[in-house]
Amino acid sequence: MKAAVLGATGYTGMLLLRLLSSHNKIDRIAAVSTSAVGKAIETGDPGLYHNLDGKYISIDDLKEFQPDVIFSALPHLASLPFYRDFIGKSVIIDLSADLRYENQSDFENAYGTEHKAPEFLGKAVFGLSEWYRNDIKKSDLIANPGCYPTCTLLPLLPLLQEEVLGGNLTANALSGISGAGKKAKINNLFVERSENSCAYSPGKTHRHQSEIQKELNYTGKKSDLLFTPHLVPMRRGMVVTTTAELLKPTSDDEISSIFDKYYGNEVFIKVTPGSQPESSHVWGSNRCDISWQINNKRIILFSVIDNLLKGASGQAIQNMNIRFGFKESEGLRTWGDL
Amino acid sequence: MKAAVLGATGYTGMLLLRLLSSHNKIDRIAAVSTSAVGKAIETGDPGLYHNLDGKYISIDDLKEFQPDVIFSALPHLASLPFYRDFIGKSVIIDLSADLRYENQSDFENAYGTEHKAPEFLGKAVFGLSEWYRNDIKKSDLIANPGCYPTCTLLPLLPLLQEEVLGGNLTANALSGISGAGKKAKINNLFVERSENSCAYSPGKTHRHQSEIQKELNYTGKKSDLLFTPHLVPMRRGMVVTTTAELLKPTSDDEISSIFDKYYGNEVFIKVTPGSQPESSHVWGSNRCDISWQINNKRIILFSVIDNLLKGASGQAIQNMNIRFGFKESEGLRTWGDL
Amino acid sequence: MKAAVLGATGYTGMLLLRLLSSHNKIDRIAAVSTSAVGKAIETGDPGLYHNLDGKYISIDDLKEFQPDVIFSALPHLASLPFYRDFIGKSVIIDLSADLRYENQSDFENAYGTEHKAPEFLGKAVFGLSEWYRNDIKKSDLIANPGCYPTCTLLPLLPLLQEEVLGGNLTANALSGISGAGKKAKINNLFVERSENSCAYSPGKTHRHQSEIQKELNYTGKKSDLLFTPHLVPMRRGMVVTTTAELLKPTSDDEISSIFDKYYGNEVFIKVTPGSQPESSHVWGSNRCDISWQINNKRIILFSVIDNLLKGASGQAIQNMNIRFGFKESEGLRTWGDL
Amino acid sequence: MKAAVLGATGYTGMLLLRLLSSHNKIDRIAAVSTSAVGKAIETGDPGLYHNLDGKYISIDDLKEFQPDVIFSALPHLASLPFYRDFIGKSVIIDLSADLRYENQSDFENAYGTEHKAPEFLGKAVFGLSEWYRNDIKKSDLIANPGCYPTCTLLPLLPLLQEEVLGGNLTANALSGISGAGKKAKINNLFVERSENSCAYSPGKTHRHQSEIQKELNYTGKKSDLLFTPHLVPMRRGMVVTTTAELLKPTSDDEISSIFDKYYGNEVFIKVTPGSQPESSHVWGSNRCDISWQINNKRIILFSVIDNLLKGASGQAIQNMNIRFGFKESEGLRTWGDL
Repeated sequence: MKAAVLGATGYTGMLLLRLLSSHNKIDRIAAVSTSAVGKAIETGDPGLYHNLDGKYISIDDLKEFQPDVIFSALPHLASLPFYRDFIGKSVIIDLSADLRYENQSDFENAYGTEHKAPEFLGKAVFGLSEWYRNDIKKSDLIANPGCYPTCTLLPLLPLLQEEVLGGNLTANALSGISGAGKKAKINNLFVERSENSCAYSPGKTHRHQSEIQKELNYTGKKSDLLFTPHLVPMRRGMVVTTTAELLKPTSDDEISSIFDKYYGNEVFIKVTPGSQPESSHVWGSNRCDISWQINNKRIILFSVIDNLLKGASGQAIQNMNIRFGFKESEGLRTWGDL
Repeated sequence: MKAAVLGATGYTGMLLLRLLSSHNKIDRIAAVSTSAVGKAIETGDPGLYHNLDGKYISIDDLKEFQPDVIFSALPHLASLPFYRDFIGKSVIIDLSADLRYENQSDFENAYGTEHKAPEFLGKAVFGLSEWYRNDIKKSDLIANPGCYPTCTLLPLLPLLQEEVLGGNLTANALSGISGAGKKAKINNLFVERSENSCAYSPGKTHRHQSEIQKELNYTGKKSDLLFTPHLVPMRRGMVVTTTAELLKPTSDDEISSIFDKYYGNEVFIKVTPGSQPESSHVWGSNRCDISWQINNKRIILFSVIDNLLKGASGQAIQNMNIRFGFKESEGLRTWGDL
Repeated sequence: MKAAVLGATGYTGMLLLRLLSSHNKIDRIAAVSTSAVGKAIETGDPGLYHNLDGKYISIDDLKEFQPDVIFSALPHLASLPFYRDFIGKSVIIDLSADLRYENQSDFENAYGTEHKAPEFLGKAVFGLSEWYRNDIKKSDLIANPGCYPTCTLLPLLPLLQEEVLGGNLTANALSGISGAGKKAKINNLFVERSENSCAYSPGKTHRHQSEIQKELNYTGKKSDLLFTPHLVPMRRGMVVTTTAELLKPTSDDEISSIFDKYYGNEVFIKVTPGSQPESSHVWGSNRCDISWQINNKRIILFSVIDNLLKGASGQAIQNMNIRFGFKESEGLRTWGDL
Repeated sequence: MKAAVLGATGYTGMLLLRLLSSHNKIDRIAAVSTSAVGKAIETGDPGLYHNLDGKYISIDDLKEFQPDVIFSALPHLASLPFYRDFIGKSVIIDLSADLRYENQSDFENAYGTEHKAPEFLGKAVFGLSEWYRNDIKKSDLIANPGCYPTCTLLPLLPLLQEEVLGGNLTANALSGISGAGKKAKINNLFVERSENSCAYSPGKTHRHQSEIQKELNYTGKKSDLLFTPHLVPMRRGMVVTTTAELLKPTSDDEISSIFDKYYGNEVFIKVTPGSQPESSHVWGSNRCDISWQINNKRIILFSVIDNLLKGASGQAIQNMNIRFGFKESEGLRTWGDL
């Protein structure tokens, strides 16, 4: 099978090239990058070796390549112009926010800019694999979720669905710096970020809050999320700590049963009652580890992912596996690296 | 003036030695350590040079030294046996939890062990400098607050006092690893903590929750704190993000006025409306930087400190300055290092 | 095929469990640990999931398991007592220094302690895969090299062999902290090692110097190595910079040809003329990247590995692959992770 | 006294502002920055508080300010145009390479660009405080040395001077990332530099090699330096390991006596025989710690500094203290922070 990666020189694109090159079902890979056309891939990306012998190609060359699947790891709104040429021919898995919203004004409020191809809105399935698996199997347009929504939603959705939680939700997230992408900004320099942590874009000012809230609303249960992300000095990794009220007294066993009902058979979700998961446990894996603690009338939920894997490129591969009927864990690790 | 440091080989003790050696009012310093008696201080602590020419002494030798002020940076419950010999002769500034509680059962619930000298409970002033300044001036027994309580209480107290906040408080804290002390534990190894973040001892299981709650209760306002600390891969630094309900619609100007009323003249509290403080801004300083964001009916409070300075050794020096009538910022920095 | 890991709770043992669990030729894995017998592996090692469903077993239970291959990741001299029970039945790949020397006094000088089973000395092949491949194919006793020797020898051996270099060699190595193992020592704490670099055990005092010198001597060429390792604040990774005199004027093309002659067909050695390799390029891979710079009469050699992979567990798997006739890269990555 | 800082928004400029604001002899400080003119200093540099109440000014406003001393922390060749206005009125301490060379072609070979004000070459004293103290006292033009030259020269000069060392010198340096300055480059991003070490600009390609060699030549002893710098994941800190041949058998006592002769009275040089200094020992101080190890006919020298202090802003303050007759350690720390 043939796969293409748009934005192959950014962090999520680079990781997609790596994962695809180790994937048993992928025979040929096209690395598409406007900035590096014609350059040998192993020179442009010195971490590669014996993986991808060719050169970066342009989007124009991609048509000839006829990819079965296209992963777009371009910045928001950059890949929309290309989609019309591939719709109906290739399965598109988009890692940007372009296809995540149904409603044009929701997108535009969150991103502060006009959506240039609103005809695509509402056409893509939201690629939160464990929750939209059946739709993903049938869709040619998959909107891969952001890292914050993935890590926040996975512990919340079962408990909301089962009407355990009251509506006031407070989520605090910690993210590794790779979440900011490979952009030459003062704010992302080693000296600025090492030995430093801070909240940023809290609450109403963060675009991910609306993406998460939208999915919470789909449960049909009332909820009001206040989401505050933080930057912490790691390359990769994400921790979300969410506090909610319990609608009624609930035992650990009841919570455990609910998670077991929803996730008991999931290969990439590990529930670890009685201890808080650490982001290093899932580093390099496509896992989300989940736990909780009950404090009288309130519950604290803990969840961790690798922001570049389950939070981006890994879940994109998982969605490809689902869509094409491969083993869901093909090409992905269930173990965290050291 | 003569100062002594008990526990001079731990991180807070080492920092106290440094700060005292640069303090204009301190002439002689005794470094007390059971593990290093007789060793040259500059050998035991290779970061020192031309600071402290002598040797570590034992607690027995300390009596002869007749210190004007004793800083205890020993583990919890380790310094109590010595206090009887110095009470009334030296001002004691204790950085452990031993003297922080009024009520014996509160201490014992939080620390899970018997308090061996309950006669001291309720005798010490809580050394949160900006709130207990007048009492500190007159006290010979000062219980220096923990880092989490300092960073959590400073933004909360004015707003609780002014009846702006509802009672349900959710605080999430991020701490650098030095907060765990200089103990040879697997969990504190570089390889375990780098590229890793996690919640730990959340809610009811964390001893600092009760220390903070106790101080909140002293305002006479109703509050119910849920506190979750996290470890993030920094040597030093602390970030606390606290979410609360607003009792009534409140403007940024009103919040700003309140902070100005309480902290407008404070040398170590910098309020930065409109932007989130970063822990690196206060690294190496004795400052607490504070900001907030209003989200409809809820407010998010942001505060940062250097856990070893305003969260421990720095506030201890500040308290000494207050107690002895020195300039409050003597020997302390108001600027964050790079 | 059945594999066993002794010392399954240390860093190299933990990584071996991971690599083996993803290896297509391994059906069953025994995790042996004295400290964790009977504990579920996924509890003791929370990074694992759906990998190893069983429990840690004791060395006594291992006989019954009848492993085809045993990896020993125990501390030096700890596994010797067990070998007699498995010699002739299992292939043994030892990651300690126990089997690396031919000469008892060489070992004892380097390690400052008596070798308890000298009858094994000289019996094992030195598992530097690219140099001893033919011997490894036939051996049941493989002494996996240390990380420093692997990274230092790979660029040096071809140039010594081809008589390009004079005998005075100066090697400076930088190592990530995982090289120190999972030991609860103050010196390995996050706070001690972050924002800190230093030389340690330089020259004559470092045990790896004699291990490297021994292999250099096998070339039959005269050489005198001065080796200085440094600790730098990374979890994983190793950089070696070696300076040598050129015996005669030599061009970049000549150096390039030599490396091509020795390594042109190697899957795990990437030669990158004209740029210095970075340790992150090989992070997570089993590669060694090599480059050089000529400065008049002197040459600087650059080499990088992941100390836990090509420097330990990865090369051990590579050696198993060679020994059992599997594809040499089976279960190993040629690409560096992000 | 009035001090001005050109380039006040870069790392060395920011640190100069901090040090000057805590310096007892400095009454007024002008922060000069083309990019931030008119902005409040405490907003532009959020680490400051109660330090510098004013605004950034332009170079044109500086004349009116009439500074007694000007520190230039501008990029190479950027401050030369301004010097003509201040020569003879202010003491100029230049932290760039502009004034370090005597010979125009030496500068131009090293920096690959034309020197625009060659009339200044040879007019400045090289500000290696311990070696040029008497000249610094009398000079109005001080060329502050680079970090690599400072850390490499301090251990070498006494031994070369005393004819202990042969001419072939191999120096390997490790630098924290702040040495690269506050520039928005992909290569300096947190994600690129964390968990990563590498050699860069080795030997003949590094500009600091010629700056160091020039000073070695001034001793009148023959030497040939091969210098290889490395980047390691620290904010601040520098380690240099230099290997040289001993001209004749030399004892530790002889080396010790030489260092004692040259540095026995220095407040900022700590010689630590028998142990390797660590960069964290001098973090935040203006110290250089030095040690050595003899290996038969070769000696290894170890030296560490804080690249931003003794390697830049700290030594600049030390030079100001020397020039104006202040206590040499005024405003500087002799102790390393935690």
